[in-house]
Amino acid sequence: MNLDKIRVILVETSHPGNIGSSARAMKIMGLSNLILVNPKNFPDPKASELAVHADDLLSNSLIVDTLDEALKESTLVFGMSARDRMVSQTVLTPREAAIKITAEYQMHQNIALVFGREKSGLTNEELERCPFQVKIPTVSDYSSLNLAAAVQVIAYEIFVASLQNSIQPETKIDFATAEEMQKLYEHIEKTLLEINFLKPNNPRRMMPRMRQIFNRARLDREDVNLLRGMLAAIITPKNT
Amino acid sequence: MNLDKIRVILVETSHPGNIGSSARAMKIMGLSNLILVNPKNFPDPKASELAVHADDLLSNSLIVDTLDEALKESTLVFGMSARDRMVSQTVLTPREAAIKITAEYQMHQNIALVFGREKSGLTNEELERCPFQVKIPTVSDYSSLNLAAAVQVIAYEIFVASLQNSIQPETKIDFATAEEMQKLYEHIEKTLLEINFLKPNNPRRMMPRMRQIFNRARLDREDVNLLRGMLAAIITPKNT
Repeated sequence: MNLDKIRVILVETSHPGNIGSSARAMKIMGLSNLILVNPKNFPDPKASELAVHADDLLSNSLIVDTLDEALKESTLVFGMSARDRMVSQTVLTPREAAIKITAEYQMHQNIALVFGREKSGLTNEELERCPFQVKIPTVSDYSSLNLAAAVQVIAYEIFVASLQNSIQPETKIDFATAEEMQKLYEHIEKTLLEINFLKPNNPRRMMPRMRQIFNRARLDREDVNLLRGMLAAIITPKNT
Repeated sequence: MNLDKIRVILVETSHPGNIGSSARAMKIMGLSNLILVNPKNFPDPKASELAVHADDLLSNSLIVDTLDEALKESTLVFGMSARDRMVSQTVLTPREAAIKITAEYQMHQNIALVFGREKSGLTNEELERCPFQVKIPTVSDYSSLNLAAAVQVIAYEIFVASLQNSIQPETKIDFATAEEMQKLYEHIEKTLLEINFLKPNNPRRMMPRMRQIFNRARLDREDVNLLRGMLAAIITPKNT
């Protein structure tokens, strides 16, 4: 199985050496699509040095400003986090995630794996963009894997799953992209403000919950159109 | 399961940073017994820097001159190698090895995991000391994992195997009952009729879809309350 369309997204990596080591970890397991969100120091000789034979992944990498930009076309997004799960988010082990990834990849879904900063990982807001959280099991909640080590474990599990996976390709489901989902959430927020359900100064608790609900539901395009049609109907005059 | 008696043996490591990263990879997966065979530069500040919180593994590590010395008391030895198997040697995947390791460890076997040099791995003579060879699957035979990445994959597999029989306690989720879901759907239908989004004579196509979306999301009680609060806000006068 050719895994080269699976996107590995590194968010605001501080040390270029970690980018290089991550590229090496990817390449040896058949991953090659690297996206860097606002890296602190890149390109940098240290990155190339640690990439060893995976230097091509660095030169072909895409650099973007925001996670939303990196996720634009993705239909299945996994966020790596050692944190306890956020309310009602689906948390998978690397092995469970790998099985899902290889199965859905064969069904032509556009898959993204999001890795956070070395010190602080992903923010809550970033994790909300990821319907699936992947938690690498460790002995202690107080420490975390090195970034490239985490990339290695996940890439290894995906590669192993790809060797075993023999799922029959199914009809492709036209899942909504991350960008379409983001627009839906903006539409929901705007509508809830309009009907005075959300207070403009305190939308914080409500919207994450909305995201979780619809992320779990995993909407296809028709679902999104239906919901946006409904939202549009809420704020138009009632008797037309 | 306490894994701290499993020995990790690094043979003639060149870069002290790799010793530090390997210690970090071990510790997070519950391994702590590190033996260094004739390391090129150790101790070294670079090793401590990359070990982060696993510095104790470095200070407690045993330094010996030969692999035979390191293996003296071991009863079950695994050699990591990307090479094709040597005649009569048993080659295992990391997963197969991890299952064997945790099973035999519980039977008080003295287990050793041997990792070779960064550039050239283990010599044939050294591999002969290892009845079991472990080969990490990769896309290419022409490149190899970074030493610490290999330690991370093996340590991860052993830790996951050690968890196999213990179920991780999870907080109980207060899912909505079928009755609460039914009331939610009735509330949605009533509201959609009110805003003229549903036509009274043909609600058939829309409501099943709504059910599918929220059934997939598997709502808890708080989600239901939130959604019903939102629905109530839609049909009350807008400026209160």
